[in-house]
Amino acid sequence: MSSNKSPQRLYFEDLQVGQRFVSENYTVTESEIIEFASKYDPQSFHTDPEAAQHLFFGGLVASGWHTAAVMMRLLVTSGIQLGDGAIGVGGELSWPRPTRPGDTLHLEGEILEIKPSRSHPDRGTIIARMESHNQRNEIVQIFTGKIMVPKKPKQ
Amino acid sequence: MSSNKSPQRLYFEDLQVGQRFVSENYTVTESEIIEFASKYDPQSFHTDPEAAQHLFFGGLVASGWHTAAVMMRLLVTSGIQLGDGAIGVGGELSWPRPTRPGDTLHLEGEILEIKPSRSHPDRGTIIARMESHNQRNEIVQIFTGKIMVPKKPKQ
Repeated sequence: MSSNKSPQRLYFEDLQVGQRFVSENYTVTESEIIEFASKYDPQSFHTDPEAAQHLFFGGLVASGWHTAAVMMRLLVTSGIQLGDGAIGVGGELSWPRPTRPGDTLHLEGEILEIKPSRSHPDRGTIIARMESHNQRNEIVQIFTGKIMVPKKPKQ
Repeated sequence: MSSNKSPQRLYFEDLQVGQRFVSENYTVTESEIIEFASKYDPQSFHTDPEAAQHLFFGGLVASGWHTAAVMMRLLVTSGIQLGDGAIGVGGELSWPRPTRPGDTLHLEGEILEIKPSRSHPDRGTIIARMESHNQRNEIVQIFTGKIMVPKKPKQ
């Protein structure tokens, strides 16, 4: 089991089950929450801090899709750099609690499965569990994703 | 089985298994793909049209999280208006093919399951399958999501 804070370019051959990675931090501001949601999830609890006080979450919260987008940013910029890119096939997503303005998120990931492709000898897929934690170390999102990873380019 | 193109505010009691909904269209431009990915998924096949020609997809494609964000926009603005908001608990996501610049997406949804909450009599959850289709009616994303829906407010 290894851990890395700084990204390194890893290919399929470099990965193993149990391998872990931790990203840097990212603080989600109120203005970013409102900007994202105004475009992609225009509901009052994501866009209107005043109205949100009286709605379900008792205050402004980020769209779950915004929390997901922040996870991807953390994965790509500081989590783990996969070959020539992390190409998601799909996965399972849950939001146990919301992200609120000023929350600082980081990503903790672990590789659960590794499988070479039968049809494409130049690649394989991994399944990784990625938890987005806030500054109190509470989990705001879990994404168990299937990601396509290239093998090392032949010289 | 009913179908609606224009949104109407629906509460838990208004929903039934098999109910379908269809959203309006949304065209995803190259500049929007680059803007979203520069912030949340900075990989060359999402941000650099020239470099993308020689990478996996053979051209620029939208981040899967961007396609997901567009789905949410379509759901909230024209898919189905759920009570006082659509609050996602989680779900399963897949991207069978990418979204490319100029693609026009719409959403086709169906309610698969309905369950009243045992602990909270004022709400329930539904499971809905939401397919994002492009202009050739190819599916670019499937999200089977669990959504919390409020019951009608008591007068």
